[in-house]
Amino acid sequence: MYRAGIAGATGYTGIELVQLIQRHPQLEVAWVTSESSAGKLLSDVHAAPYDYPLISLEEGMKRAADVDVVFLCLPHAASIEPVRAFQATGVRVIDLSADFRLTDAKIYERWYNTPHTAPDLLDQFVYGLCEINRAQISGARLIANPGCYPTSVNLGLYPLAKAGWLSDQVIVDSKSGISGAGRQTKLLYSFAEANENFTPYNIGVRHRHIAEMEQVLNRVNGQHEHRFIFSPHLLPVNRGILSTIYLSVPAGVTEQMIRDLYTETYAGEPFIHLLPAGQIATLRHTSHTNRVAISITPADPTQPDGPDYIIVATLDNLVKGASGQAIQNFNIAVGLDETTGLL
Amino acid sequence: MYRAGIAGATGYTGIELVQLIQRHPQLEVAWVTSESSAGKLLSDVHAAPYDYPLISLEEGMKRAADVDVVFLCLPHAASIEPVRAFQATGVRVIDLSADFRLTDAKIYERWYNTPHTAPDLLDQFVYGLCEINRAQISGARLIANPGCYPTSVNLGLYPLAKAGWLSDQVIVDSKSGISGAGRQTKLLYSFAEANENFTPYNIGVRHRHIAEMEQVLNRVNGQHEHRFIFSPHLLPVNRGILSTIYLSVPAGVTEQMIRDLYTETYAGEPFIHLLPAGQIATLRHTSHTNRVAISITPADPTQPDGPDYIIVATLDNLVKGASGQAIQNFNIAVGLDETTGLL
Amino acid sequence: MYRAGIAGATGYTGIELVQLIQRHPQLEVAWVTSESSAGKLLSDVHAAPYDYPLISLEEGMKRAADVDVVFLCLPHAASIEPVRAFQATGVRVIDLSADFRLTDAKIYERWYNTPHTAPDLLDQFVYGLCEINRAQISGARLIANPGCYPTSVNLGLYPLAKAGWLSDQVIVDSKSGISGAGRQTKLLYSFAEANENFTPYNIGVRHRHIAEMEQVLNRVNGQHEHRFIFSPHLLPVNRGILSTIYLSVPAGVTEQMIRDLYTETYAGEPFIHLLPAGQIATLRHTSHTNRVAISITPADPTQPDGPDYIIVATLDNLVKGASGQAIQNFNIAVGLDETTGLL
Amino acid sequence: MYRAGIAGATGYTGIELVQLIQRHPQLEVAWVTSESSAGKLLSDVHAAPYDYPLISLEEGMKRAADVDVVFLCLPHAASIEPVRAFQATGVRVIDLSADFRLTDAKIYERWYNTPHTAPDLLDQFVYGLCEINRAQISGARLIANPGCYPTSVNLGLYPLAKAGWLSDQVIVDSKSGISGAGRQTKLLYSFAEANENFTPYNIGVRHRHIAEMEQVLNRVNGQHEHRFIFSPHLLPVNRGILSTIYLSVPAGVTEQMIRDLYTETYAGEPFIHLLPAGQIATLRHTSHTNRVAISITPADPTQPDGPDYIIVATLDNLVKGASGQAIQNFNIAVGLDETTGLL
Repeated sequence: MYRAGIAGATGYTGIELVQLIQRHPQLEVAWVTSESSAGKLLSDVHAAPYDYPLISLEEGMKRAADVDVVFLCLPHAASIEPVRAFQATGVRVIDLSADFRLTDAKIYERWYNTPHTAPDLLDQFVYGLCEINRAQISGARLIANPGCYPTSVNLGLYPLAKAGWLSDQVIVDSKSGISGAGRQTKLLYSFAEANENFTPYNIGVRHRHIAEMEQVLNRVNGQHEHRFIFSPHLLPVNRGILSTIYLSVPAGVTEQMIRDLYTETYAGEPFIHLLPAGQIATLRHTSHTNRVAISITPADPTQPDGPDYIIVATLDNLVKGASGQAIQNFNIAVGLDETTGLL
Repeated sequence: MYRAGIAGATGYTGIELVQLIQRHPQLEVAWVTSESSAGKLLSDVHAAPYDYPLISLEEGMKRAADVDVVFLCLPHAASIEPVRAFQATGVRVIDLSADFRLTDAKIYERWYNTPHTAPDLLDQFVYGLCEINRAQISGARLIANPGCYPTSVNLGLYPLAKAGWLSDQVIVDSKSGISGAGRQTKLLYSFAEANENFTPYNIGVRHRHIAEMEQVLNRVNGQHEHRFIFSPHLLPVNRGILSTIYLSVPAGVTEQMIRDLYTETYAGEPFIHLLPAGQIATLRHTSHTNRVAISITPADPTQPDGPDYIIVATLDNLVKGASGQAIQNFNIAVGLDETTGLL
Repeated sequence: MYRAGIAGATGYTGIELVQLIQRHPQLEVAWVTSESSAGKLLSDVHAAPYDYPLISLEEGMKRAADVDVVFLCLPHAASIEPVRAFQATGVRVIDLSADFRLTDAKIYERWYNTPHTAPDLLDQFVYGLCEINRAQISGARLIANPGCYPTSVNLGLYPLAKAGWLSDQVIVDSKSGISGAGRQTKLLYSFAEANENFTPYNIGVRHRHIAEMEQVLNRVNGQHEHRFIFSPHLLPVNRGILSTIYLSVPAGVTEQMIRDLYTETYAGEPFIHLLPAGQIATLRHTSHTNRVAISITPADPTQPDGPDYIIVATLDNLVKGASGQAIQNFNIAVGLDETTGLL
Repeated sequence: MYRAGIAGATGYTGIELVQLIQRHPQLEVAWVTSESSAGKLLSDVHAAPYDYPLISLEEGMKRAADVDVVFLCLPHAASIEPVRAFQATGVRVIDLSADFRLTDAKIYERWYNTPHTAPDLLDQFVYGLCEINRAQISGARLIANPGCYPTSVNLGLYPLAKAGWLSDQVIVDSKSGISGAGRQTKLLYSFAEANENFTPYNIGVRHRHIAEMEQVLNRVNGQHEHRFIFSPHLLPVNRGILSTIYLSVPAGVTEQMIRDLYTETYAGEPFIHLLPAGQIATLRHTSHTNRVAISITPADPTQPDGPDYIIVATLDNLVKGASGQAIQNFNIAVGLDETTGLL
């Protein structure tokens, strides 16, 4: 039985992780931290009967030796010091924040407009996009769990990028459920504002999540400079991301060649759900699961061999987009069956 | 053309009032205040093209002479000083807060656990429940606009109480859309908490809104001590209140007698929608309207003459439960057709 | 490894059952039937990657010997003949319809206005309310899975009824998510009708679900004639039931006595979540779980010893209200740990 | 006072029209038809107190002389014969179906795969896109009310197309509330399927609504062959369309030039809400109004002069996308102030 520490369990990814660990036959919760609610029980802050005492992060650090793995569910920028502290103890760390996802400190600085404060740790991290980086994740001690939006785009486009068939310009129109914003109280995320509404935000080429798309898709087949126009929208549902992706392929690449490429690339993948021709991925295909659903649609069905295609990729932002992929990373890292606790 | 000042236009009742005034052929907006956003435009804080400059409440007070009526859409307890200031200028005031609804300072103190700080103003106010107090509202200069929950219960039960047929104990199970909580950012009201959820709160006999039920229903037919068990619930919709009310009537009172009583009591009322036998009121009957829908259902259809009945009353909390009734009060007070601008 | 046949997998309880069985370490799907979609794959009718071929019910009956248990997820009244066919083969049957829940054919006839067509089978069935009837369920071959509304009411009131503290009249104001109506296409259940709406239906003393409340609560402590006024409402969420229950207790029964009673009655129950004083059960406490959450609130907090109380009980209608309890019944019947596959 | 006949009042556009007419000071309902519910009252089929008797369409035709205008809210393809019958009487007809929107019978045949059965009537119709075709609408007796999706796209792109600045390829990612599908009972539109879901459908270049985009935008500046990739998605809200439109402009066209173009083109338009730089249109900007909100965002804010832009356009599909624009067309046709009854 492995034991887990969870730093930051009062947000949505934290409680999702606790629930997933309840189901996991070889992993159990050792301790749980919350800065805002230390001293209370987890059941005081979430509508669930988990009576774990909430301790401070500092106390969690003292108990690093009690656990095999620490999951960091902290706000962005708050993971850097805890990562340093935990990795010094040798415990395995899976960080769900954005702090260690970009492997190049210069790229981090370009997107975040500030130097990374722990560049020495950056290159010790493996980017935990399980289906792509499985080999590096195996045995890894420091894993950066990918972002929810980029996971949908990267798994949706990986086969095309790897084959060199992805167009220079890619338009990604993404829609995310509101838990993706975290458990916070901004007016924008209040029910009476978000319900019966639909809100684009940060649209264009400057959203930070594009950095993870470039990191994965621009490097998978030599160096390539795909340009991503990425438009996230706030969708009035609790969970789920759907990315509608517009691209074109080179002359001579047919729909069947693309379908075969995806089928081969993802053969045997337990969490990739490729939809047959004629079906389109929806949120329902993946909600409350660790799956990514991917559909391939020619823009013009009377000219099925292109060049324009619409890839739709969906996932549950709290599972495959966060805590589920974190468990998947844990399973791979320690050598368990990758699906353990995730079906 | 009458001119209105609106104090506190950045909440939901304020913007609803502005929208209703756009439609009103004899009322126009003169000025709009917002403490939190003074200096901005109304269109900066609401998704609507109303470019009214937001001024401070203090500035609004200076412009009292520019208007015929001031609508106060301020947080509870914040209306007392503005009311005093505006009434001193002689301008007509319609207060949408709870501050002046209870006409008896002792009763206020009992429910709010603090003395009322303007008891001298209390008895100058008319309680603006239009269908019941129309005569007093006509010509009134100080009007307290009723609460949303009590309006559903008071109009739902008024005929029975007046006839002396209402049982001593009444159970009111109410459900309200989330705009009823105001435009605020508490976690409880955030989308990801409230959506796909349903939350009872303050259930029992101590919710302050009961005071308005007692004030209306316990006095309408001599003095009577009806006891209200009132359970509000947070409903995942933007707008609307539905109150399911359980009561019994005296032996000998038949369903037909009750229907006749309601029909006569509300004959000619433009905003009361009595449903025929066999239909039950829903939110949809009243959403985005100034109506109250009322249905009467015998608990046991095989014993239609009682004694147990279920009255369901619904309204839109932002219209008949707030800004619409405020306009209706204005119309009555100045002698316009009561439905002006409200169809 | 046990093997399951599922009759009627194209509705919501059917697909929920398939998903739960995926997670169950000792149960697997052998075959799945659908009258409307036989010949297709399960993945053709649900947004999930379960490629089970859908066979006809007749074909399923021929394969009774392939399975250890058959779950019947058929429309009400459609289970009677399949039950007879399957029980003749000796296979264990767990019926999720209402057909065999009432153990007395006369009571069935009274509520359904038609004689039961298989009265001989009725008394071979165990009523599968796990927490109450665990002993009879153990080893049972014919189990009638309880209704969703009655499960919330029966588990919410069982301790009081057993102690003889439940008042003669009980008012149950229940709210259910729309999946409770099944996977059907009536206008009432269409999105544009049900969203931003809230709809009472069949309110009073004649809803058939009352029969299950009487069967459990009127017999648990000798014979008692509690009268249930039961008002279901359609709630705009996918899943979840919340019942707000109004009752009174005898003089001398204090809040602490009630709390102690519930704590003792449900000691060690893995799926009963008793909330501490001051908290009220919400849908969120139980959604996507097999739990029932129960809260106890004195109507008048200044008179905590009664006599009026409000019990709120919640559950997920597709899990504890249907497929989860069906798995729990299976686990108990065959002697597995009751929580297997349900955490 | 003008009098209106409404053919087909049991759908969403029909009831919206009735509600809008209640508010209109110079238009009243004369008769209302419903094939499915003839003989009932309108209040029997909608949760609203409008006790208009529902008559058959045939009966409505007999009463053509009683009205000044007939609004046809019939299913697509069902308008052709009624249009012929009504126009023969000389009554003004505003058709909300798709039957007479395409002015060229050959283009109709190309998109609908069937010849138009009343080509002689086609060119008597004016396409009622008010802001663009105001001159032709004035005095018109046969008006085809535009589709909801195309209205958002056409008004969102009209200035660019007219200026000749619109790129050859335009990607339109549209999202529509579920009332856009009409009042029907398909499983896809049921609450438990559509809620917490998001569903792309008919994505690509073959959706029929593209024909209206081509008709308007390809002809506004000579003939141009813009190619529209149009992806509609089903959004879990009742009302509202948001179209996120990706395009590029010629070198030398700056953001300021585009803003000036839109400001000039739409100067004085009462129902066009141009958002200032930095704001993006949302559903909330237009819900329950007759407005279209339009925002202009450079894809790369560090290169504000292009060439890539994202135009977001929103409207309420039942108001500006259907019944509101129908009233606007009526107002223009008979020479009333265009905003009458629409504020």
